[in-house]
Amino acid sequence: MPKRPSKASPAYSPADILKLARSSIQALKPYVPGRSIEDVKAQYHPKQIVKLGSNENPLGANPKVLKAIAKVLPKISLYPDGSSRVLREELAKYCSAKDGAVSADEIIVGNGSDEILLMIALAFVKPGERVVVSENTFSEYEFSGRVLDAEIVKVPLKEFRYDVDAFAKALAKKPKMMFLCNPNNPTGNYITHGELEWLLKKTPRSCLVVVDEAYGDYATEKDFPRSVELMRKFPNLLIARTFSKLFGLAGLRLGYGIGAAELLRETLRVKTPFNVNLLVQTAAVTALNDKTFINKSLSVNSKGRLQIEDGLQKLGLFYLPTQANFICFHVPRPAVDLCEELLKRGMIIRALKSFGLPDWCRVTIGTREQNAFFLTELKSALQRA
Amino acid sequence: MPKRPSKASPAYSPADILKLARSSIQALKPYVPGRSIEDVKAQYHPKQIVKLGSNENPLGANPKVLKAIAKVLPKISLYPDGSSRVLREELAKYCSAKDGAVSADEIIVGNGSDEILLMIALAFVKPGERVVVSENTFSEYEFSGRVLDAEIVKVPLKEFRYDVDAFAKALAKKPKMMFLCNPNNPTGNYITHGELEWLLKKTPRSCLVVVDEAYGDYATEKDFPRSVELMRKFPNLLIARTFSKLFGLAGLRLGYGIGAAELLRETLRVKTPFNVNLLVQTAAVTALNDKTFINKSLSVNSKGRLQIEDGLQKLGLFYLPTQANFICFHVPRPAVDLCEELLKRGMIIRALKSFGLPDWCRVTIGTREQNAFFLTELKSALQRA
Repeated sequence: MPKRPSKASPAYSPADILKLARSSIQALKPYVPGRSIEDVKAQYHPKQIVKLGSNENPLGANPKVLKAIAKVLPKISLYPDGSSRVLREELAKYCSAKDGAVSADEIIVGNGSDEILLMIALAFVKPGERVVVSENTFSEYEFSGRVLDAEIVKVPLKEFRYDVDAFAKALAKKPKMMFLCNPNNPTGNYITHGELEWLLKKTPRSCLVVVDEAYGDYATEKDFPRSVELMRKFPNLLIARTFSKLFGLAGLRLGYGIGAAELLRETLRVKTPFNVNLLVQTAAVTALNDKTFINKSLSVNSKGRLQIEDGLQKLGLFYLPTQANFICFHVPRPAVDLCEELLKRGMIIRALKSFGLPDWCRVTIGTREQNAFFLTELKSALQRA
Repeated sequence: MPKRPSKASPAYSPADILKLARSSIQALKPYVPGRSIEDVKAQYHPKQIVKLGSNENPLGANPKVLKAIAKVLPKISLYPDGSSRVLREELAKYCSAKDGAVSADEIIVGNGSDEILLMIALAFVKPGERVVVSENTFSEYEFSGRVLDAEIVKVPLKEFRYDVDAFAKALAKKPKMMFLCNPNNPTGNYITHGELEWLLKKTPRSCLVVVDEAYGDYATEKDFPRSVELMRKFPNLLIARTFSKLFGLAGLRLGYGIGAAELLRETLRVKTPFNVNLLVQTAAVTALNDKTFINKSLSVNSKGRLQIEDGLQKLGLFYLPTQANFICFHVPRPAVDLCEELLKRGMIIRALKSFGLPDWCRVTIGTREQNAFFLTELKSALQRA
């Protein structure tokens, strides 16, 4: 790479920067993403690489979606519809069929659900207000609060599950917002409809409750929350979802939120004009309506879950019951080392140190072949230790 | 659309919402985008539609870019590289050749330059600090300041140009940030290298100066700022640019910023993990390296500028000299009415009421045919008045 010319002015010193930047952001740690195929290829040159590290859809790209994108591709020089109207209407139809009547003005879309979470915080969280998050969960909830100068109130898991009692107790601190990940990333377990309703009953309307259901599409338990039904009773409930998992569009970036139109109207004030790109607006509509791909993805996931659970049992490893597209399991040595060993063999999974669980790993449920490769390499890596 | 069920709980009242939402965002007005082809088609059913309303590249999609996207399309189920490493390295090469040595850690990328502007504000602007913007300019500068609870200091244009003296005087208010649009959207004129250097000399390093060069690629005047050279001398200068204009990628969303690595490191703290989608990371690299498309775009623009200027002169209309891919011209009746009349004829241009210039229009410089259609329809619409 070209170097900076030597005549460059002295840039800002750490002390200068501390004065210039907002102090709250100094506590923000950069997000730790899963390893990419390219990285691992460059580092270890394994014969083949199987990536089950980022909870992507193991079926890969949906061919119908690729066709839909190809059709709209010649329009890339034009700005997208800033209001994503057609997409929001289709999402309203999809959710209405699945969750109970939802209208397009109760849907908000963003550049990944990361942007949805940030927009909600940006619209509502005032400096010094409290935001309640769980420990051992997706880091973007804490990020969204911190970026807005919130005081973060952290509640621990209880027996590796979200602790609804602890959330209720945290209400004594009069929080402005609570974030729940359901099913939780990375533990894979869930809070029930009854638990969420109980918590919402205790929560004043001055506190917004954001439930991130990024993995909710995979939940099969009967008592998984019917969150849209709860949103009708408790208008302070906002639901975030994503196209990165079941719909297989992680690369295109699309998340959506469901909430009271009044709340979303305020959230939209902080939206940049064209936040959702042209291609994903079209791709998502096709993905939503492709029941075949959706059902196949769900079926691969439920079969793969049994396969991996069975394999982990045979290896004598403890795992948590999952309602998501991944499984969280305990390992007998530092997970970071084990995962590095697996990388050398071309197997990408996630060590959960950055989630505060240094003895645990998370593996995405893949296809039969991918899961088999994972179990073989895991067995071999464990023996090597 | 499905209706909300009648048993819905009473949602938030306006008074509730005022209490809940951050007060600063109440002043945010939704962005007013240009009209889309679909909207105009649905409303007026004109025989043909020519869109010169949003300063998009009139050549449309670059075929080489389409091919590059097609190749990477099968990867859309995978998360993009969150650090956009390859793209930033290619941008560093591109800028080094054009502007003088720049390294990849002096480049930041975002979901459109809108996101760059917001991230810079989010990283540096503290509540109550002052942000200086011009009147009659792109609205996102004011937006970025307001969203962070800044006090907005507005300086008027002087003879329809950015007033560098007024910016310098505004320094008495000890602002944290100043935004300049160069060339200015929507007037098309520019501040010179000498003017920008003069302003930077007067500006303390505690005030960040953000120059948005979204249209800088079209500037041909010799004294247009060599902003990267100035950034070396004044590390408080940040430069924002976009792929939505010359590179023809408005639909895919990509903006970039150039600045001191120390400043960008702080800005990156507020970045969401995967802000730039997979396809645009690839598309942009191809677009950067396609000199043929770039040169053709520039040539179409310079020829078109003469064609439109000539046409406006013949119609007796006053216009401002432009260094961008659009021309700002005065009209003898409310521009909103005139533009509505043009819409009926299938001609989309922009009335500048939302920019505070109710007697002015902005037309994107198009192809020869598009410009001819515009001039014919404009003449006819004016006669009809």
